[in-house]
Amino acid sequence: MRSRKRSRKAGLPPGTLIHIGERKAENTRITLFRYDADHVVEKQIQSLSQALPLPDEDTITWINVDGLHEVEILKEMGDLFGLHPLALEDILNTHQRPKFEDYGAYAFLILNPLSGGNQDREIDKEQLSIVLGRNFVLTFQEREGDVFDPIRERIRSNKGRVRKMGADYLAYTLMDLVVDNYFVLLETLGEKIEEIEDALVLKPTPEHAGAIHRLKRQMIFLRRSVWPLREALNGLHRSESSLVRQETGLFLRDLYDHTVHVIDTVESFRDVLSGMLDIYLTSASNRMNEIMKVLTIIATIFIPLTFLVGVYGMNFEHMPELRWKWGYPLVWLVMICIGVFMLFQFRKKRWL
Amino acid sequence: MRSRKRSRKAGLPPGTLIHIGERKAENTRITLFRYDADHVVEKQIQSLSQALPLPDEDTITWINVDGLHEVEILKEMGDLFGLHPLALEDILNTHQRPKFEDYGAYAFLILNPLSGGNQDREIDKEQLSIVLGRNFVLTFQEREGDVFDPIRERIRSNKGRVRKMGADYLAYTLMDLVVDNYFVLLETLGEKIEEIEDALVLKPTPEHAGAIHRLKRQMIFLRRSVWPLREALNGLHRSESSLVRQETGLFLRDLYDHTVHVIDTVESFRDVLSGMLDIYLTSASNRMNEIMKVLTIIATIFIPLTFLVGVYGMNFEHMPELRWKWGYPLVWLVMICIGVFMLFQFRKKRWL
Amino acid sequence: MRSRKRSRKAGLPPGTLIHIGERKAENTRITLFRYDADHVVEKQIQSLSQALPLPDEDTITWINVDGLHEVEILKEMGDLFGLHPLALEDILNTHQRPKFEDYGAYAFLILNPLSGGNQDREIDKEQLSIVLGRNFVLTFQEREGDVFDPIRERIRSNKGRVRKMGADYLAYTLMDLVVDNYFVLLETLGEKIEEIEDALVLKPTPEHAGAIHRLKRQMIFLRRSVWPLREALNGLHRSESSLVRQETGLFLRDLYDHTVHVIDTVESFRDVLSGMLDIYLTSASNRMNEIMKVLTIIATIFIPLTFLVGVYGMNFEHMPELRWKWGYPLVWLVMICIGVFMLFQFRKKRWL
Amino acid sequence: MRSRKRSRKAGLPPGTLIHIGERKAENTRITLFRYDADHVVEKQIQSLSQALPLPDEDTITWINVDGLHEVEILKEMGDLFGLHPLALEDILNTHQRPKFEDYGAYAFLILNPLSGGNQDREIDKEQLSIVLGRNFVLTFQEREGDVFDPIRERIRSNKGRVRKMGADYLAYTLMDLVVDNYFVLLETLGEKIEEIEDALVLKPTPEHAGAIHRLKRQMIFLRRSVWPLREALNGLHRSESSLVRQETGLFLRDLYDHTVHVIDTVESFRDVLSGMLDIYLTSASNRMNEIMKVLTIIATIFIPLTFLVGVYGMNFEHMPELRWKWGYPLVWLVMICIGVFMLFQFRKKRWL
Amino acid sequence: MRSRKRSRKAGLPPGTLIHIGERKAENTRITLFRYDADHVVEKQIQSLSQALPLPDEDTITWINVDGLHEVEILKEMGDLFGLHPLALEDILNTHQRPKFEDYGAYAFLILNPLSGGNQDREIDKEQLSIVLGRNFVLTFQEREGDVFDPIRERIRSNKGRVRKMGADYLAYTLMDLVVDNYFVLLETLGEKIEEIEDALVLKPTPEHAGAIHRLKRQMIFLRRSVWPLREALNGLHRSESSLVRQETGLFLRDLYDHTVHVIDTVESFRDVLSGMLDIYLTSASNRMNEIMKVLTIIATIFIPLTFLVGVYGMNFEHMPELRWKWGYPLVWLVMICIGVFMLFQFRKKRWL
Repeated sequence: MRSRKRSRKAGLPPGTLIHIGERKAENTRITLFRYDADHVVEKQIQSLSQALPLPDEDTITWINVDGLHEVEILKEMGDLFGLHPLALEDILNTHQRPKFEDYGAYAFLILNPLSGGNQDREIDKEQLSIVLGRNFVLTFQEREGDVFDPIRERIRSNKGRVRKMGADYLAYTLMDLVVDNYFVLLETLGEKIEEIEDALVLKPTPEHAGAIHRLKRQMIFLRRSVWPLREALNGLHRSESSLVRQETGLFLRDLYDHTVHVIDTVESFRDVLSGMLDIYLTSASNRMNEIMKVLTIIATIFIPLTFLVGVYGMNFEHMPELRWKWGYPLVWLVMICIGVFMLFQFRKKRWL
Repeated sequence: MRSRKRSRKAGLPPGTLIHIGERKAENTRITLFRYDADHVVEKQIQSLSQALPLPDEDTITWINVDGLHEVEILKEMGDLFGLHPLALEDILNTHQRPKFEDYGAYAFLILNPLSGGNQDREIDKEQLSIVLGRNFVLTFQEREGDVFDPIRERIRSNKGRVRKMGADYLAYTLMDLVVDNYFVLLETLGEKIEEIEDALVLKPTPEHAGAIHRLKRQMIFLRRSVWPLREALNGLHRSESSLVRQETGLFLRDLYDHTVHVIDTVESFRDVLSGMLDIYLTSASNRMNEIMKVLTIIATIFIPLTFLVGVYGMNFEHMPELRWKWGYPLVWLVMICIGVFMLFQFRKKRWL
Repeated sequence: MRSRKRSRKAGLPPGTLIHIGERKAENTRITLFRYDADHVVEKQIQSLSQALPLPDEDTITWINVDGLHEVEILKEMGDLFGLHPLALEDILNTHQRPKFEDYGAYAFLILNPLSGGNQDREIDKEQLSIVLGRNFVLTFQEREGDVFDPIRERIRSNKGRVRKMGADYLAYTLMDLVVDNYFVLLETLGEKIEEIEDALVLKPTPEHAGAIHRLKRQMIFLRRSVWPLREALNGLHRSESSLVRQETGLFLRDLYDHTVHVIDTVESFRDVLSGMLDIYLTSASNRMNEIMKVLTIIATIFIPLTFLVGVYGMNFEHMPELRWKWGYPLVWLVMICIGVFMLFQFRKKRWL
Repeated sequence: MRSRKRSRKAGLPPGTLIHIGERKAENTRITLFRYDADHVVEKQIQSLSQALPLPDEDTITWINVDGLHEVEILKEMGDLFGLHPLALEDILNTHQRPKFEDYGAYAFLILNPLSGGNQDREIDKEQLSIVLGRNFVLTFQEREGDVFDPIRERIRSNKGRVRKMGADYLAYTLMDLVVDNYFVLLETLGEKIEEIEDALVLKPTPEHAGAIHRLKRQMIFLRRSVWPLREALNGLHRSESSLVRQETGLFLRDLYDHTVHVIDTVESFRDVLSGMLDIYLTSASNRMNEIMKVLTIIATIFIPLTFLVGVYGMNFEHMPELRWKWGYPLVWLVMICIGVFMLFQFRKKRWL
Repeated sequence: MRSRKRSRKAGLPPGTLIHIGERKAENTRITLFRYDADHVVEKQIQSLSQALPLPDEDTITWINVDGLHEVEILKEMGDLFGLHPLALEDILNTHQRPKFEDYGAYAFLILNPLSGGNQDREIDKEQLSIVLGRNFVLTFQEREGDVFDPIRERIRSNKGRVRKMGADYLAYTLMDLVVDNYFVLLETLGEKIEEIEDALVLKPTPEHAGAIHRLKRQMIFLRRSVWPLREALNGLHRSESSLVRQETGLFLRDLYDHTVHVIDTVESFRDVLSGMLDIYLTSASNRMNEIMKVLTIIATIFIPLTFLVGVYGMNFEHMPELRWKWGYPLVWLVMICIGVFMLFQFRKKRWL
């Protein structure tokens, strides 16, 4: 939510490389994939010199970096692949919004994979930076994770199209995975919404209001990640860049559609949550009305009667009624009449 | 509302064919229509090889598939008609928003027919996928239904224009039917709204608030289906695709106008419902005010009087007033004065 | 508000001619005007064959049809003037939004004249369809009325420009009249708003809230008619159609400006009405506060005192205070002190 | 706010000249300025024939008309300067929104100068129409006023650029003055807002709510004048019209920026006022809470105690407690315990 | 917030130079930097003639003026650098919105650096005007400050790119610094929001509502500075101006992205604050409900009982119950039954 610690950079020259954000990984780990339709090599590397893309156009190199706190490694990669200092700065500053930038020789993308959201865990935002070159893809993540394992598995076992297509398709599958995870998150949230909705009908409690507010908050959060992503994907899809082949274009359009679907769902959820809050407030106001009615009915009937019995509790010496034989039953009669009249009034006002 | 079970796909290669959504039909049923201006053939088919479009340009083939759980059939159709895996994936994933996609040789459309809405039944959303080729139309539905019967009847009996025009006109009539059903749904909802509105004037109850909220919810639901449909129709209408003949263009423009009309009505209903909720809340607040006024009037008159009679109910030995001859009537006089003064005050404050 | 009975059409072939809407006129009446700068002929006709436009370009023919339930007449006119079935369908379906459609040889316009709005009468919406050809204008109305009388009078007496200009100018004057009537309606509503506003300042009652809600409802209604009209006029003004001469263009621009003015006023009224509702609710909340304060002051002062006198109303045998000579005056003193202290507290809290 | 009396025009031919609006001036007064870099002539004229622009391109003629009720004069001017009837109609109909229209030989502008706003005076809207020709400027105002005196003075004394530049610059300075007066008005309103805001912090009263509502109303009013002005200025600035020289273009851009600034401020004020209303309502709700707490605390403590003393005020013959020696002190003890327990409960609920 | 004192200018010729705003600096101070890749000269100057840019293209001159009240100096600079009077007017009028204007030979930019925001200090807005020429940059500030010190240090010590690039890059670094400070401000505000949010969960007090309102106000303030800045940067970035070299373009795009990020964060904060206000109000309404429930329970139980004991406190001579032996215990029994019944009722209504 907050661009914490970004203030450390204020005043430094633009392009200064400082890691901004929590250090989420112990060590920086670099993994290299190199494949074409027929071969695949996978290894963890120490020295970046091993990572330089082969001159061969058809061999795709994918380098994934987990952990961003070792600025030196980033700098070295920047030199090897000719990355612009501003791109490197964006990779390190983990409070970026999703964006797409075309640097000519390569395209630069930032995404915000989200996780969590279940069992009242806050949604957790990470930053994934993707550099897409002619025959290489570089990815940078804040922490080690197995989020890309399905894709690694597909490359290893040559499942799906990924081995037969270019670097752009690899980048696409990575982004597709991120967007797919948005759907998973939305399902989790959607189930929570349904749960609260069902409970609201039975008996609304302040806890529900709190849960609705929390969900609304998470929608703001989600929205902030998804809206710019849509823009970024649109930018990538519409860019004239020769990096994106035509056959990948169709897939990107599909991915764009998925993002629109996510946005759509988020907006609907927001509307639904607002409606639920209204339901809660309406029912709270109904309860208040109910409570006030009970109080008013009881008070309105008994306060005058209490006054009346108070009158005949006075100790004046000269109170003729006190001596009447039928005084006491008469008072009861009067009081019952008053009570019945009041009840009748309430009925007329439809309070009963 | 929710993209339930979509999470099953996260991590699978794009284009993987898995049916997502409830299985709503027992069996997959494939029906084939083949007609030109003079002839019409209609049959239920088992083998798809019978379905291949004739080379003749003027004979239109319409294949309708009910039930999407048999992925194999879809795959076969995809091969026969040269459909892109992403289109097939969209057909199977029944949580799509309406959309239009131009694949060159064919156009791909998704619509969300809606039904229900009456007798407090939830609105029921289905997915209808249409593939429009030069001389064929493929339609995919989640369940068997007779929704297209009027069109089948028109083809059989050569009523209207449908037999004289191309595949694009057939696709148009199918979409027109879906949009016409939106109007039917809107009428049902409109009548409900009118009913509640009339009831609100007489006596608002919490049930009305609930019904209004439910209708608002359904409007969100409707909106989600209709807005993207408008976009899709606009896309189809404006596409340069040679699949849509010029004379059909006019009809598509008309259909687009109908969709705008639906959107318009939905937005008006939303405004009206918001207004009704405001009326409900205003009237609730008025009732509360009313209740409080009654309570306050009664309490304010009788509490001081009760205090007074309490005073003369004390048992002090030395209370001269108690011995006065006119003490008791005097107390009554004082109390009546207080009461009248209070009533006068309330009148001045316009509470009475 | 509602597209009632539109459901009757669902499933019928597009272009089927069925009159949808109330039958508002007894009989269909067709009146013909034929004029040029020097001559004018006006008659009521039975047979449409008399209506065919003269070959002469400068003679304008205006045919007005009141009453839409006789579908046959419409069909005949459609044939005579070469109207597209979709246009005819739109004329008959009286739940259309205002729109403009260019059919090449003629332009087709739908407007929603509004009337009523005064003396708590609901606003009444009609449908006026205009077909503008090179040298003819066709108008279709739901009921007989004298709304166009001023224009007829102008044609007869050759006042203004209308006889000197073409069919497009005639169509313009018809539309201008409709928009002028919007201003009349807005004035009526504006006066109502002013009235309620003045009354709100003096003493807000629930009736005002009701009236405000009713006006808000009417604004939604108005808006639905005027927004698409603006679009339609813009379409007509910007269309490349040769039907609209350049000198008429200036007038259309002016008419467009008027429509924008109407929209502007409607939006302002909506804002003003929202503000008035806020005023009402604020004042209701103020009243509630006021009521609660009175209740609380009275109760807070007298409830403790009543307790106190209750204490000395107890019948214990051993209550030394009851025997004190100054017991009774002392209790009064204590009670007065408590009362004064309470009042002082309320003053401090600024409740008095 | 209201287009009062516009209804008088409904049904009349477009371009009919009728003065719509209040008659604000006694007589129509026409003043003529004729100047170039070296000479200036200023006179009040009777006959418009004196007003015809000189053939000399460099001599600028400025004719100002105060008072619009003498339609004849307008008609004459229209003939002399070749104004379109629609332009004349707009000048006379003083309920126009600001607009710009390019008539080729001249440009036509309508502005809404605003005044008042201080000491609870309503904002007063006038209509200023400007016709800008190659070497003349015509201005039409509803009433006599000295609003343009600074410019007259500048022309007379040759201060600033005005004498050295063309008719377009003169028109610009007139408009600049109108926009400058918006800033004056905004300052007045801004000071009021600040005042109320400071007062709200100390003690919110219903009067503040009223004042806030009044200011909100004025913002709606202002907005209605300024938004279309922005559009109009943009139109003038971007128009290809040869009437606007390039060096004046920079000034118009600046004027446009000022208008945007005004709009910006109006929108901010609206936001601020909404916020202030929220503050008012929040604080009203806080007060209500406070009041209810006091009532509840007092009632909850004393109502049970009053019951208790009531018990021992009963006159049963067999009430053993009444005879106990320590009965009375014991009752006090019990009551004090109950009171303390209650206070303790309130403390626990954080009501104290 | 307010364009205070701007009214002083109303009626003066456009381009009149008057300082509008508070005088924030004692003296006007002019500092000159002149550098190329190899040399740097820095001095405070008195006479502006020393400031004229060198004919050499590669030597950059940066003149910074602190304090705007000495109009003469501005006028002189305007003459020396050929600035347009409108630009000079904007520099002096310190109530401008951020803007970009292309004057051909130079570009003119206005920014609003913001400071403060911590420890309940109001956010403080200044005006920074930047004139960017081919080989010079002029900056104008309202008061002396060390805000640009990091950049001065970088120039002196030749850190970063600034000495190697042109005047456009210098202007960029200045703007970058301003935007960086927005992030610092947002962090401060974000921390406050978090603080209040955490406190709201524990126990909401009216103070929180006040703080939320204050923060909302500051967001309006921030928004007003940042939205036009985005526009201005976009204008600069997209302008065809030859003043901005291509390599600086990338940096400007980055800066533009940062501004969008700021806007994004501001909008999110607004949403979050609205949500927090809702939470506050919901919880206030919950408390009210709670309070009312307590009051109603106590009153509803004891008021009838008090009435009952009142009955047997009456002094009628003929009240048989008073003489019954078990009268007193019976009354207790009845009262306990009533009390239990009431409690049972409350339980049923789920009030307990």
